[in-house]
Amino acid sequence: MQINIINGPNLGMLGLREPQIYGALTLDQIMHGLAEYARSLNVRISAAQSNEEGVLVSHILAGRELCQGLIINPGGFTHTSVALRDAIQAVDLPCVEVHISNTAARDDFRHRSLTAGACLGQIMGFGPMGYHLALNGLVEYLNSRNNKDDL
Amino acid sequence: MQINIINGPNLGMLGLREPQIYGALTLDQIMHGLAEYARSLNVRISAAQSNEEGVLVSHILAGRELCQGLIINPGGFTHTSVALRDAIQAVDLPCVEVHISNTAARDDFRHRSLTAGACLGQIMGFGPMGYHLALNGLVEYLNSRNNKDDL
Amino acid sequence: MQINIINGPNLGMLGLREPQIYGALTLDQIMHGLAEYARSLNVRISAAQSNEEGVLVSHILAGRELCQGLIINPGGFTHTSVALRDAIQAVDLPCVEVHISNTAARDDFRHRSLTAGACLGQIMGFGPMGYHLALNGLVEYLNSRNNKDDL
Amino acid sequence: MQINIINGPNLGMLGLREPQIYGALTLDQIMHGLAEYARSLNVRISAAQSNEEGVLVSHILAGRELCQGLIINPGGFTHTSVALRDAIQAVDLPCVEVHISNTAARDDFRHRSLTAGACLGQIMGFGPMGYHLALNGLVEYLNSRNNKDDL
Amino acid sequence: MQINIINGPNLGMLGLREPQIYGALTLDQIMHGLAEYARSLNVRISAAQSNEEGVLVSHILAGRELCQGLIINPGGFTHTSVALRDAIQAVDLPCVEVHISNTAARDDFRHRSLTAGACLGQIMGFGPMGYHLALNGLVEYLNSRNNKDDL
Amino acid sequence: MQINIINGPNLGMLGLREPQIYGALTLDQIMHGLAEYARSLNVRISAAQSNEEGVLVSHILAGRELCQGLIINPGGFTHTSVALRDAIQAVDLPCVEVHISNTAARDDFRHRSLTAGACLGQIMGFGPMGYHLALNGLVEYLNSRNNKDDL
Amino acid sequence: MQINIINGPNLGMLGLREPQIYGALTLDQIMHGLAEYARSLNVRISAAQSNEEGVLVSHILAGRELCQGLIINPGGFTHTSVALRDAIQAVDLPCVEVHISNTAARDDFRHRSLTAGACLGQIMGFGPMGYHLALNGLVEYLNSRNNKDDL
Amino acid sequence: MQINIINGPNLGMLGLREPQIYGALTLDQIMHGLAEYARSLNVRISAAQSNEEGVLVSHILAGRELCQGLIINPGGFTHTSVALRDAIQAVDLPCVEVHISNTAARDDFRHRSLTAGACLGQIMGFGPMGYHLALNGLVEYLNSRNNKDDL
Amino acid sequence: MQINIINGPNLGMLGLREPQIYGALTLDQIMHGLAEYARSLNVRISAAQSNEEGVLVSHILAGRELCQGLIINPGGFTHTSVALRDAIQAVDLPCVEVHISNTAARDDFRHRSLTAGACLGQIMGFGPMGYHLALNGLVEYLNSRNNKDDL
Amino acid sequence: MQINIINGPNLGMLGLREPQIYGALTLDQIMHGLAEYARSLNVRISAAQSNEEGVLVSHILAGRELCQGLIINPGGFTHTSVALRDAIQAVDLPCVEVHISNTAARDDFRHRSLTAGACLGQIMGFGPMGYHLALNGLVEYLNSRNNKDDL
Amino acid sequence: MQINIINGPNLGMLGLREPQIYGALTLDQIMHGLAEYARSLNVRISAAQSNEEGVLVSHILAGRELCQGLIINPGGFTHTSVALRDAIQAVDLPCVEVHISNTAARDDFRHRSLTAGACLGQIMGFGPMGYHLALNGLVEYLNSRNNKDDL
Amino acid sequence: MQINIINGPNLGMLGLREPQIYGALTLDQIMHGLAEYARSLNVRISAAQSNEEGVLVSHILAGRELCQGLIINPGGFTHTSVALRDAIQAVDLPCVEVHISNTAARDDFRHRSLTAGACLGQIMGFGPMGYHLALNGLVEYLNSRNNKDDL
Repeated sequence: MQINIINGPNLGMLGLREPQIYGALTLDQIMHGLAEYARSLNVRISAAQSNEEGVLVSHILAGRELCQGLIINPGGFTHTSVALRDAIQAVDLPCVEVHISNTAARDDFRHRSLTAGACLGQIMGFGPMGYHLALNGLVEYLNSRNNKDDL
Repeated sequence: MQINIINGPNLGMLGLREPQIYGALTLDQIMHGLAEYARSLNVRISAAQSNEEGVLVSHILAGRELCQGLIINPGGFTHTSVALRDAIQAVDLPCVEVHISNTAARDDFRHRSLTAGACLGQIMGFGPMGYHLALNGLVEYLNSRNNKDDL
Repeated sequence: MQINIINGPNLGMLGLREPQIYGALTLDQIMHGLAEYARSLNVRISAAQSNEEGVLVSHILAGRELCQGLIINPGGFTHTSVALRDAIQAVDLPCVEVHISNTAARDDFRHRSLTAGACLGQIMGFGPMGYHLALNGLVEYLNSRNNKDDL
Repeated sequence: MQINIINGPNLGMLGLREPQIYGALTLDQIMHGLAEYARSLNVRISAAQSNEEGVLVSHILAGRELCQGLIINPGGFTHTSVALRDAIQAVDLPCVEVHISNTAARDDFRHRSLTAGACLGQIMGFGPMGYHLALNGLVEYLNSRNNKDDL
Repeated sequence: MQINIINGPNLGMLGLREPQIYGALTLDQIMHGLAEYARSLNVRISAAQSNEEGVLVSHILAGRELCQGLIINPGGFTHTSVALRDAIQAVDLPCVEVHISNTAARDDFRHRSLTAGACLGQIMGFGPMGYHLALNGLVEYLNSRNNKDDL
Repeated sequence: MQINIINGPNLGMLGLREPQIYGALTLDQIMHGLAEYARSLNVRISAAQSNEEGVLVSHILAGRELCQGLIINPGGFTHTSVALRDAIQAVDLPCVEVHISNTAARDDFRHRSLTAGACLGQIMGFGPMGYHLALNGLVEYLNSRNNKDDL
Repeated sequence: MQINIINGPNLGMLGLREPQIYGALTLDQIMHGLAEYARSLNVRISAAQSNEEGVLVSHILAGRELCQGLIINPGGFTHTSVALRDAIQAVDLPCVEVHISNTAARDDFRHRSLTAGACLGQIMGFGPMGYHLALNGLVEYLNSRNNKDDL
Repeated sequence: MQINIINGPNLGMLGLREPQIYGALTLDQIMHGLAEYARSLNVRISAAQSNEEGVLVSHILAGRELCQGLIINPGGFTHTSVALRDAIQAVDLPCVEVHISNTAARDDFRHRSLTAGACLGQIMGFGPMGYHLALNGLVEYLNSRNNKDDL
Repeated sequence: MQINIINGPNLGMLGLREPQIYGALTLDQIMHGLAEYARSLNVRISAAQSNEEGVLVSHILAGRELCQGLIINPGGFTHTSVALRDAIQAVDLPCVEVHISNTAARDDFRHRSLTAGACLGQIMGFGPMGYHLALNGLVEYLNSRNNKDDL
Repeated sequence: MQINIINGPNLGMLGLREPQIYGALTLDQIMHGLAEYARSLNVRISAAQSNEEGVLVSHILAGRELCQGLIINPGGFTHTSVALRDAIQAVDLPCVEVHISNTAARDDFRHRSLTAGACLGQIMGFGPMGYHLALNGLVEYLNSRNNKDDL
Repeated sequence: MQINIINGPNLGMLGLREPQIYGALTLDQIMHGLAEYARSLNVRISAAQSNEEGVLVSHILAGRELCQGLIINPGGFTHTSVALRDAIQAVDLPCVEVHISNTAARDDFRHRSLTAGACLGQIMGFGPMGYHLALNGLVEYLNSRNNKDDL
Repeated sequence: MQINIINGPNLGMLGLREPQIYGALTLDQIMHGLAEYARSLNVRISAAQSNEEGVLVSHILAGRELCQGLIINPGGFTHTSVALRDAIQAVDLPCVEVHISNTAARDDFRHRSLTAGACLGQIMGFGPMGYHLALNGLVEYLNSRNNKDDL
């Protein structure tokens, strides 16, 4: 089982600035930790980050046949990207939207997610730990679905 | 460490109707499973359900000194209750909002959460598993915060 | 056949004030008249009134297996209660929303009904007679549906 | 006593299409059944249908002196016609708005009725039976008003 | 010089109801008075009333070559008719919009005029006298424009 | 009989700029023409212009006992001034709002008049002639009202 | 195969005014050209124009059994007519909405089409040629659908 | 003379948390101080607090015959409760709405009060002292009204 | 201690019109009464009224060093004046907004106060008595703040 | 004559998924068919697809001197991209916007096209055939424009 | 060459309060510095400040023939004054709007500028230096325009 | 000192089209002129242009440690890009937003800047000169800030 992890604009800055707020971990370190955790769940992850909306779309589409699930942190595109929403629907894989901060407690224009409506679910506000929770939840979901299919 | 679990209106119906959709577990069974999981994390939970907004407010307030964290599924009050938001802020405990379904994929009037802005974070769309993820995330958060305080 | 009659906040004041406007009948008298009329239609009614949203939710849910239909006057909760809407959907019984006054001719914030979208239909503006019309319509609907099921 | 029954655009299609949904009765049959029911209540009805807003306005105005009440199903004009609202106010007769379906459970643009604010009340969601309920309610209203006037 | 006078829905009721409010003059009487006044200004008027939007459109279009100006009281269509606005633009004649009442002091949905944007100007709130003022203003406008053209 | 004429901000520029558009008449010349016309109607006018909202308010209030009617061109304050609306209501005199241009055919923010709701009526789009029409209409209104009072 | 062509308000003016903008062809000439083109595609067309919303509704309904498809240019009713939308849905024929101009480049109130949601598709901005494109597209659609049905 | 004092959700927390902000007084102490002040004004108060909307409604209704006035701090229900507004209107007593903080300086969703429109007036931003001002103002209002009635 | 009292547009009309509604007291009389009351509280007041927004701004700014507090009734400027809000913030004095009527029970455009967000609090609906309550509350606030500063 | 064909995000998935819905043709096959059709019209096409907004902008700009017209399917960028709109305006070529589905019958956020206002016209709902109709219409438009220029 | 500098409400407070935030310079000192800078550019400035909207309007109008350009800081009137916008358009001089702070980073109601649409451009966020930049830009603009006119 | 200059979509077209409007200078020429001007201020600039949102984000992030300030013309992304706003905040450098035209005088959807809220300030409407003003202002700002830091 392989899970596609997609990280959007500015997330490459994690760990490089204000570590007292966002934590000292870089995105690479977070993804390495996640890969390790994935192995413990018997799944593999492929992780990509881009500041470009279209590259993110392409990453999602590229995983259509290779992956069984999707975890996406669309960053600032969360609130404006119909294209990402369409891509999630196009690959027809269960997708979990992750946000490091709690967007409901920030600017008004961050309160609406255009992409979440195309997802299985959403996890936000837990910092980097959110990726672990998302992977945990997604793998459990896929396993239970597979079990049903086996019957 | 004790975590207050608050379930809102209509959640007492879980397991009683359309089990093929919402799962065959009743809220009681979900809460028992959660209590067991909690023990494995070395925390206790106290769980309450009510269809009444004010009773939920009272449950939250009652846990102010007894509990270290809060998990709330406000059900239909999510979108309309300033009183619940105020209660979450009043107890000043880290709170995780849980939804069994992905409200971003349902009616327009379910897209805005009045309560989430007062929370640490939000988890939605994972069915009953969402409570486990929330508890996992909340306990990790509390532990890491306590560790910092110890320094 | 049993029909659940649910009356919301402030409806207990009927008959007690401004009888020249709202009529001289108390809610009790209206419900007694309705019970009599129900007998003539060969159905029984169970009537409840509460000023509390959650108690109304509980009344609706309690009738899920006992009743075949629902008549609700949500009073001021009509325009604000997602919880009541969810309860109506949860019991999956045909429901008629009744208003004593014509809310379309009153304040702007009374023009939208959050609950009506989960109902079979709505009757408003006929004063206490609205309950009779609702019961009449609901029983006819249930009878014709049962007849179809018999074929 | 005479009641004016006004049916708006597309209602002439009733019974001709999708009878499994809208019922097998044509508008003519519904109006004949209504006329029969009216006789049992000792009132006469005059029924008109038009797809044209202005013809409906004219029908309403024409009944100003001949009729004591009005039942209107404005169809798609419900949500857009100030002219029909003005006509209802101009004849100053008690008017009941009827909808065959529950418009609160359909498209957003069907949630607001421009005409209902000028009416005595509204009945919707009961299929063709709605006309009977409306007639019943309207005649009761007129009788009780007349009784008061007799005193 | 000929001016087209177009009166919209429900205006045929003038004088027939509530004369203490709207005055005792019927629309016919008002139009006769206006014709007389027109003669004193050396212009002729052609007056039409219809409850039907499309008939009003046709009346406007029919006057394209016969008339030099247009006075319209669109009644309830004022706030909803793009078709009337288009017709006024299509004939490319100076048009004055008249309202008997002051629509800015009535319901919210009467505060926006879709048709006025295609007109030379608007006169409202003066009762039947508004037609005289409109004719006066329109003829003065046409005369001064003709004078300029003569130079 | 005396009529108070109030002209708002920027109207002192009339005639001084773009005479091919706004006409060659200055506000003084327009007011002198209006005074002459007033004499022919047996009324006197007092005319004031100010760029200051509060000075306009004071002019309106000052005329409360001296004048029988009010003509106001609030200029840019039309769309923003609750204070002017309150002043018109405070003197309780019939008021006509005049605009030289047709504001319904200009920027969106000019489509709503805050002041018109407190007036008897509105005349717009006729250039300087609008003042004559307003005076004509207002005097006719006052005369007919006085005649009624005489009976 | 027969296609119903419905033209709305003011379209009868085509060719009569501003030919340098809208072209020199009258609606009759356009419809004759379209009929000829239709013959080359082996279909017949029936064309109707009316300024009246209800007459357009009737034309649509009248074609329910005679026609296999519908092309409609609702003119100004595009943005305001729920009745036309309902009629298109009632006949359950594939319908193409045509606009001679590009409404997206005109006034704000022309940016929303109430009728397009009930159609197969929409073509706008191509002048009279739009009818040919619509007929071409509609016939291709019907042919390919029939071919599928044949299998 | 008796005044009903109604305190809404979360107000039972006063004095228990962040005393440096909200003051060191509990709600009980504030109410005792208010009772003392009431005695000095020769009136009695009955004070109730509940986190439940319906219980607050019931408290208001219960005071209909026992009390001459009402002071209400609806807390978070201020912005969402039509039911409380209806209750205030139902008892037809002069009511003063009190807020401890200045809600106009807080979140956007706290800027609209649904309940204030049914009140005599509103006092906010004065901390616990607001109750004294409200009582003072309400008693003065009642006394002056009674004096008028005596004449 | 000196308090600046600022009264906005149209308030100079108090007592002069409709005394049965607004009371028989002129603004001068109210201010004299307030000055007397102030002396009993050991403070002085300086009162100003103007119909001009800018003059009010200047009055507020002028009191920056002379006064310890501010009471303002901005009249119609309440809903439209950013300049007054800025002035209140600029002097950085505790300010109480007073309204004679309950603006929440009047026109929609009176429901939002632009100025209140810059104030300590708001009192409305108590008629002229509102100034006394405001002064009472403001002086208590200043005294208790000073007492804290003394410690 | 050369026409630039621009396809936006996710359109590379055509034919690869749900062929029973979107047809079995890949975008490549559609573009090859279109090229063939173009040859029959004596024009050449250059086709590009990208998931990246900026790459699409660059493709449009690159065709400014090489192409005489533009066909664009902006996919999800239709509703959000000011940059694409600006690019269409910058090259000043007649542009046809194509959508495979009828966006007016889908989610609310798909009802507004930001790009269509900068286009000659729009074709939607015809599936892949829409590109043929667009090319047909665009070439006819260019030919007739060239003919005019020749005169 | 002369440039009119207009400063709006509350700007007279610059330098008098919170110098650590707004700088220690008074408006007079800023204007003197600006005059000096103007001399170095070979232009003269005339500077005015007022808290009154109408006085600002008059200052703008007064400079119509004396000045070649306009720099305005409308303060709080930026967001509410149609009158100032009209004045800027009336004098038909290139105008630069200056704000000391970055209004886009402050309250929501400061995000829209009613006056900027009538200006050549806008400069904000640079503190007092903004006036220098504005003068620099405006003079460059005027010089380059004059040079073109000379050709 | 180094300043990062970022130019968004379509700005590469400057000088290539409509030189009479946008000037004859290409973006390269403008940037060269700016570089020269920068040298006179003793700073270096690095300039980048891209049509791709994500590339712009990357350019901004890349300058985080190399540059002391940022000048950005986000073109069409100004109104839609949360990602660019986040990038500006992420590098935590003073940023000036530049627009060649005055966006407040163009389409409605250009009136809101999502990015400006994260900037130091904004300059618009001065054509290419805007970059010089921005550089001038930004360098002055940085110098004065450095001077403060030196103390």
